[in-house]
Amino acid sequence: MGETIKDLKRTHLCGEVTKKDNEDKVTIMGWVQKRRDHGGVIFTDIRDRTGIVQVVFNPDLGEELFKKADTLRSEYVVAITGEVESRPDGNINPELSTGEIEIKAEELRILDAAKTPPIQIEDDIDTGEDIRLKYRYLDLRRPKMTKMIGLRHKITKACRDYLDEEGFWEIETPILTKSSPEGARDYLVPSRVNPGQFFALPQSPQIFKQLLMVSGMEKYFQIARCFRDEDLRANRQPEFTQIDMEMSFVNQEDVLEITEGLMKDLFAIGDIEVPAKIKRMSYQEAIDRFGSDKPDLRFGMELKDLSEAVKDSEFNIFSGTVANGGQVKGINFKGGADSPRSTIDSFEDYVKMFKAKGLAWMALREDGLKSPIAKFLAEEEIEAIKSKMEAEEGDLLLIVADKASVVAAALGNLRLKIAKENDLIPEEIYEFVWIVDFPLFEYDEDEDRMAAIHHPFTAPKEADIEKLESDPASVRSKAYDLVLNGEELGGGSIRINNHELQEKVFSALSITKEQQQEKFGYLLEAFDYGTPPHGGIAFGLDRLMMIVGRTDSIRDVIAFPKTQKATSPLTKAPSKVDKKQLQELGISIRS
Amino acid sequence: MGETIKDLKRTHLCGEVTKKDNEDKVTIMGWVQKRRDHGGVIFTDIRDRTGIVQVVFNPDLGEELFKKADTLRSEYVVAITGEVESRPDGNINPELSTGEIEIKAEELRILDAAKTPPIQIEDDIDTGEDIRLKYRYLDLRRPKMTKMIGLRHKITKACRDYLDEEGFWEIETPILTKSSPEGARDYLVPSRVNPGQFFALPQSPQIFKQLLMVSGMEKYFQIARCFRDEDLRANRQPEFTQIDMEMSFVNQEDVLEITEGLMKDLFAIGDIEVPAKIKRMSYQEAIDRFGSDKPDLRFGMELKDLSEAVKDSEFNIFSGTVANGGQVKGINFKGGADSPRSTIDSFEDYVKMFKAKGLAWMALREDGLKSPIAKFLAEEEIEAIKSKMEAEEGDLLLIVADKASVVAAALGNLRLKIAKENDLIPEEIYEFVWIVDFPLFEYDEDEDRMAAIHHPFTAPKEADIEKLESDPASVRSKAYDLVLNGEELGGGSIRINNHELQEKVFSALSITKEQQQEKFGYLLEAFDYGTPPHGGIAFGLDRLMMIVGRTDSIRDVIAFPKTQKATSPLTKAPSKVDKKQLQELGISIRS
Repeated sequence: MGETIKDLKRTHLCGEVTKKDNEDKVTIMGWVQKRRDHGGVIFTDIRDRTGIVQVVFNPDLGEELFKKADTLRSEYVVAITGEVESRPDGNINPELSTGEIEIKAEELRILDAAKTPPIQIEDDIDTGEDIRLKYRYLDLRRPKMTKMIGLRHKITKACRDYLDEEGFWEIETPILTKSSPEGARDYLVPSRVNPGQFFALPQSPQIFKQLLMVSGMEKYFQIARCFRDEDLRANRQPEFTQIDMEMSFVNQEDVLEITEGLMKDLFAIGDIEVPAKIKRMSYQEAIDRFGSDKPDLRFGMELKDLSEAVKDSEFNIFSGTVANGGQVKGINFKGGADSPRSTIDSFEDYVKMFKAKGLAWMALREDGLKSPIAKFLAEEEIEAIKSKMEAEEGDLLLIVADKASVVAAALGNLRLKIAKENDLIPEEIYEFVWIVDFPLFEYDEDEDRMAAIHHPFTAPKEADIEKLESDPASVRSKAYDLVLNGEELGGGSIRINNHELQEKVFSALSITKEQQQEKFGYLLEAFDYGTPPHGGIAFGLDRLMMIVGRTDSIRDVIAFPKTQKATSPLTKAPSKVDKKQLQELGISIRS
Repeated sequence: MGETIKDLKRTHLCGEVTKKDNEDKVTIMGWVQKRRDHGGVIFTDIRDRTGIVQVVFNPDLGEELFKKADTLRSEYVVAITGEVESRPDGNINPELSTGEIEIKAEELRILDAAKTPPIQIEDDIDTGEDIRLKYRYLDLRRPKMTKMIGLRHKITKACRDYLDEEGFWEIETPILTKSSPEGARDYLVPSRVNPGQFFALPQSPQIFKQLLMVSGMEKYFQIARCFRDEDLRANRQPEFTQIDMEMSFVNQEDVLEITEGLMKDLFAIGDIEVPAKIKRMSYQEAIDRFGSDKPDLRFGMELKDLSEAVKDSEFNIFSGTVANGGQVKGINFKGGADSPRSTIDSFEDYVKMFKAKGLAWMALREDGLKSPIAKFLAEEEIEAIKSKMEAEEGDLLLIVADKASVVAAALGNLRLKIAKENDLIPEEIYEFVWIVDFPLFEYDEDEDRMAAIHHPFTAPKEADIEKLESDPASVRSKAYDLVLNGEELGGGSIRINNHELQEKVFSALSITKEQQQEKFGYLLEAFDYGTPPHGGIAFGLDRLMMIVGRTDSIRDVIAFPKTQKATSPLTKAPSKVDKKQLQELGISIRS
């Protein structure tokens, strides 16, 4: 039977025994990382949450202790008391915080034995993810994973400290609630007490946080669990965590500034510097220059507008597109002039995925211009293109002529593809940018009407309110996204707190009174009783963690994640349940 | 259309404008609490999260501003700029933090109008709870409720600060998980991706927190949402919040000490002092002296054992009970001697609810002893009883003879009933006590076998391990409850971290290998790979909040609670859902 710690007190954590403890008697507790015998002496590395320390068992300490030490195997749980000694010069390990010392064991208690673990407890393993998730409790022992869980604690703690300091109250909102109007699929929970009725798990606390503003709570936040029953993509989880904020009596700039302070504190934990003031870029500028509302600013290769240069060209594909209200734009792949034809073809195939009809190109090779379209263009048109695109020998110019949205999508994505394939993106560079002035509406082709880009409570910019009826497509909103290195960290908006304006927006969206009542009834009713100006923002904690933790798997930053099939190999959830349980709930399984 | 705050900056919160701001220009934002006209001047009280401040509109400020002020109604949302002035001596309101000043309005913006609210926005209202829950956003505007939400934030913040300081990591565990072995009914969530299978919402993170100890996280906590689909009693909610902790390499005393520090910080927020070391009382002592493992120590009236005094009595009900291994015990209702017969009868009816066969009594009235049993007792037996119970003139002695468990339940509960009915419990006294040394098992009459009092992973005390087979009923455990004023705040235990011992406990519980696998399979498998000694504790946050917030309704301490029928009058959850949704989930409603 395992020994107990009884009154034994742990004096040090493994990773924190250093030269300053030299000649002190210490007691450590942890797991046997490895054990090796050398020259009649047993060396063991003992591991806890903080790191590893070496413990030496000498035979001269007595037969009993030595024999006991000889039974130690990997992952045994032990408590060891001994004296800290400097390691001989040749044995110092500069990679360990404890690498200058070792502990000369004097007492050993084996608190629990262990079977040979099916996962190696070390960082670089190639064990399949299913095994890692099944034995998650072992996977989490790996130092990288342990650190990640500790990091997540530090991040959420820093978040809470900052927001508390700023006067925010963390307020819990219900998990058992009602279908929300977010649009994704809800997880449903049958109600036993109210047969035939269902709760829904929240996709976000959006409605509750707005109700809390109506309640006068003024500054709300929550590190909130959210749920979406969507088909899972690589980095999606059925339940995920959101840093959710809302505040009253603020304008857009207030929200942005408070968020900047928060980001500064959170990213500092990962040694990532956030500028005191993050640059703002309008949605239109982001689309114009980068073809994306999530621009990656770590590299150039911006989209250049060639429409003016080619609008009178005899090359009809260019001039005709401009004449029809479209655009001709290009990007300059520096040093790409010698790309083989197969690569250029792959670029063309790629832009076609974004509905571009084709891809024109000009390679400025050492032996002159090579381009299938050169023959259709006048010399000064070619010169104008080269000048616009700051082209020089060695460059490959890639040009799309189409309607604006297609040009942006095609070239914006091609820009990213080329940059990734050619290692043009510097590492450990962090380019934050606020994207502001989003359009309020976008045209929904399926429904043939305007749809809200954020949600229907997003406020339009004051200057554009007059265009709500006459020109809704041009109305800009008080919505904002924070983008880092081409990924959206979070987004939000200032909300409408006024009936008349809300009516106009519903009307522009062709949402009838009945639909309003059905989807947003109780929130709209709440707005009747004095609603402060308010706005907020929400961040995906899991993605933020991935950046700070420098990992590209969401399953590395969640203690107990699910597979892409929304299952847990550890707990075997979901699982079948007793017929009796279903009967009580008043439901049955369709056959 | 409502005005906007644009670049207007709020300089002060309403409750924080005081004499120190005299003659300063301030801008406040908030809701109109009330408005009254007096001597041609409009007085308004403006309210925000922090309190109320009086704003005065004088007609000499111009017709436009005055006319606008005249449109103000209760709960309008406003921004007001003006100069702080001392109130005339006679008008000072010492009950308000802002009672010495008022703001002379110079600018008014009406940010939103409001309909007349269906709930008065003030503390003492007798509005029905259904209306309060339906208009929860208005109910929360009442200062008492706003304070409660702020208090909850402060409590959870203090909890996180303390535990972080102590080296705990907050770790999120899944909400979509598998049926747990807690015994209460699970909420189920049908899985769309895995038709016919269900997730369960967790009743507590018990298994995950033990897995995290196996993972080497060492010190875990979480302010965790838990779910139980039980029939709701007065202060139960389908979802509730738990302060959940677990730690490794600790003994019972370590857990108790860390918890004491936490309680000190949390209760300090409600100005409640927690002793540096909370007294420990064994389960047996609590039962012996108070008839309860949740003893209320704010008053005496302890149970006195009279068995020795009456064991040879000719009164067979007493002596026979003792001879058969039962007990005769009594409590002394000081000053109760003149209780009318109907009251004493009600006491007897009450103890019968706890299976007592009857209630003997002796009233020490001014005109002598009155008792239906006196005639059966010898003079020295009566004297011995009086002496044991420290009886004096005016006292009413209430005696039960029965088996020990019935005596404890009957007198323990009668003690509480008498104390409550006669106001014997002092207010604002906080008596904390640790109940320790619980029995490991209790006899389950329905199943005719021993059952675990806490859960089957609770460790027995070392000294009692040898009795696991021979005398399981006498084995004490390393379980502990923290009790305050007769209510359980939380409880936990040191867990078994050793296979051999776990087997013995399962065997004493008659849990077969198959049952072990089915209920705890993956946890038991985890225990194979090196499990540290560990233990933990969990507290109900909602109850703790009720004590610190001094309210007796759980619905006062949760922002959006449910009714006793597990519904939300605000969101109308649960609700019917589309047939299409059910089809996707592969379930149907039984008709």
